Amino acid sequence: MNQDAQRILTETLREALPGAAVGQALEQISFNPDGRLVVVAAGKAAWEMARAAVERIARPIAAGVVVTKYDHARGPLDCLEIFEAGHPVPDENSYRATARALEAVSGLTEKDSVLFLLSGGGSALFEQPLIPPEEMADVTRQLLACGANIVEMNTLRKRLSAVKGGRFAQRCAPAHVYTVVLSDIIGDPLDMIASGPAYPDASTCAQAKEIVARYGLRLSDKAQALIAQETPKALENVTTFVTGSVKQLCRTAERVCRELGYEPVTLTASLSCEAREAGAFLAAIARDHQEDGKSLAYLAGGETVVHLTGKGLGGRNQEIALGAAAGIAGCKDTCVFSFGSDGSDGPTDAAGGYVDGDTARRLAEAGYDLHKTLADNDAYHALKAVDGLIMTGPTGTNVNDLSVVLIKR
Amino acid sequence: MNQDAQRILTETLREALPGAAVGQALEQISFNPDGRLVVVAAGKAAWEMARAAVERIARPIAAGVVVTKYDHARGPLDCLEIFEAGHPVPDENSYRATARALEAVSGLTEKDSVLFLLSGGGSALFEQPLIPPEEMADVTRQLLACGANIVEMNTLRKRLSAVKGGRFAQRCAPAHVYTVVLSDIIGDPLDMIASGPAYPDASTCAQAKEIVARYGLRLSDKAQALIAQETPKALENVTTFVTGSVKQLCRTAERVCRELGYEPVTLTASLSCEAREAGAFLAAIARDHQEDGKSLAYLAGGETVVHLTGKGLGGRNQEIALGAAAGIAGCKDTCVFSFGSDGSDGPTDAAGGYVDGDTARRLAEAGYDLHKTLADNDAYHALKAVDGLIMTGPTGTNVNDLSVVLIKR
Repeated sequence: MNQDAQRILTETLREALPGAAVGQALEQISFNPDGRLVVVAAGKAAWEMARAAVERIARPIAAGVVVTKYDHARGPLDCLEIFEAGHPVPDENSYRATARALEAVSGLTEKDSVLFLLSGGGSALFEQPLIPPEEMADVTRQLLACGANIVEMNTLRKRLSAVKGGRFAQRCAPAHVYTVVLSDIIGDPLDMIASGPAYPDASTCAQAKEIVARYGLRLSDKAQALIAQETPKALENVTTFVTGSVKQLCRTAERVCRELGYEPVTLTASLSCEAREAGAFLAAIARDHQEDGKSLAYLAGGETVVHLTGKGLGGRNQEIALGAAAGIAGCKDTCVFSFGSDGSDGPTDAAGGYVDGDTARRLAEAGYDLHKTLADNDAYHALKAVDGLIMTGPTGTNVNDLSVVLIKR
Repeated sequence: MNQDAQRILTETLREALPGAAVGQALEQISFNPDGRLVVVAAGKAAWEMARAAVERIARPIAAGVVVTKYDHARGPLDCLEIFEAGHPVPDENSYRATARALEAVSGLTEKDSVLFLLSGGGSALFEQPLIPPEEMADVTRQLLACGANIVEMNTLRKRLSAVKGGRFAQRCAPAHVYTVVLSDIIGDPLDMIASGPAYPDASTCAQAKEIVARYGLRLSDKAQALIAQETPKALENVTTFVTGSVKQLCRTAERVCRELGYEPVTLTASLSCEAREAGAFLAAIARDHQEDGKSLAYLAGGETVVHLTGKGLGGRNQEIALGAAAGIAGCKDTCVFSFGSDGSDGPTDAAGGYVDGDTARRLAEAGYDLHKTLADNDAYHALKAVDGLIMTGPTGTNVNDLSVVLIKR
């Protein structure tokens, strides 16, 4: 049983790596062979994504820019210019890199292609403000002070940027933009990831003006004029591939489960409730499908939360696992495991936790009271005592968590 | 959409009624036509179950006893003797009724049949202690005082009773006993429901003695001798039908959903986690199956819990519904509803709650903050404001709760 869990873990993580994710997307793209190809990569995984592209694209790349977080570049990549820049607050290097990217995509024809590789953190790393950076910072401060939400903040900031809210793709036109998104936000809201440089903006000038009025924001004349300029509502030169998201994690797990002889059932890719209760729910599912007479795998991706009630050590995935231990106690050839795809879970060195029908008994023997351990948020030590910690080390990707129920028959 | 929910609610409740449940079981039973038939019904639903049996059984009934809670008998039933007795504490009427039942089943032959109709509350209503009632009460007090759990208490009490722990069925032998159980305990533990008068007892004398020693219980010589007498470990003259349980509720809902064009997926019949988190989990499932291109119904039976954090009004089913409202906000033709099969939910006049993709918006318009309302445990008033309360009145049955996700395409 443990071997099946190990294989599901290993294979889903392997396919969620930025390189594998880009590879999958590239299989679906045919760049126009008569035009030029420009590569722009932005975000925390930009370097890995760009490397995968360089390795897999046989034809010459005309120009390219990679902008990632400090200490995230791992060396030169073919003809690409590589920048490291500020995150989460943009800095001069962000602006320099973005300016170079805009140069690289200017003057393209409709035969040309842009491969745009986007990952989390792109909002700060890929930016060219249309007002002085200090004024942009002041607007952000005002918005935070008056309690504006993230949607309201983005509605304004997209209008004050040369690249956000679909404007980067507009600058690439008439070239075709193939965007490959490595999503780290549940539900893959494409206008939110890096503020959507190549995605139509759903917000309107009217909404932007209403926000300025509601909060009494102080804006320069230039900023006020920009607020009145509409962002693109449709982008005909863009094709978007979302890859490496938690949905992809679920799809890969489905395939591996099927290969191992389990019938997979994906419940959700947007789990967001309290971790230990998610564990209890998964255990109730496991318990009531014991007699189905076939091997079953229930999959749930997402990012649960932990409301701390104690001072122990643990993480949300460890709490999901421990929260399932009582419910599957005594169930034969049944396990529940959960892990963070980045290889870390809470402030621990574990990626998650694993429990089976025997775990509750072993915990009791080791002196752990399940209820008290969960109330103490001390899943780490309890799971450690019964070899229930999943250890992977840093994985090189970050596409949320996966929880799995396996029933082997 | 609301109409589909209404129909699922109505039909599952109708088939969970004690009468319908008994009817389904009777279809599977053929009493030996050459022998006599005795009917014994015990529990809170005993009268309804007995009436259904009398209405459906064409052949004459030789004798019969019905024992139910005070104010739960609704009139005479054919040739059956009807008793009302104490619950949750047994009283003289419990003992009188049980003695009459033991008389009615004594002297039967192997051609004869006993139809034994059992429902919740039977443990107090159907009892003949083998020690004086005052001593039984003293043993119970001692067990409670030393913190013994329900399994330990039952292990002792079964040995001090003439009918519990399979002994009633033993007294019926060599007649065949057809037990029809209306289960109100998750997982249908047949040795627990009414302390299993017609079910083999898994506990042993050795365990009973160990409990007496561990807690230093003071027992009379007679009680000590009884503790050493083994309960039946196998009952060859018994056939048991569990009906009207929450599993049955799920099965009926599956059938009705199929008739309405939904593909039903039963997740579990033993949901027992925190209500609002179960709602959030169900909403995450609903959200991620929006694009499946078919009508889907996800079903979860069980009995969730509510840890009070506020002073509002509500019940676990209302919290499940409200807990799902944010997660399905904006989803088209999608609803989540949950109800208690007894028609009541917490200290309210509602049976449960109903939310759809529009509920979160309507609640906001009505001035309700979802997060705060849940923290206040005030689901009742919020759902009332958006016509989200399910009102059925008392249903006449009690087989836990059912939660349903509907996605119509």
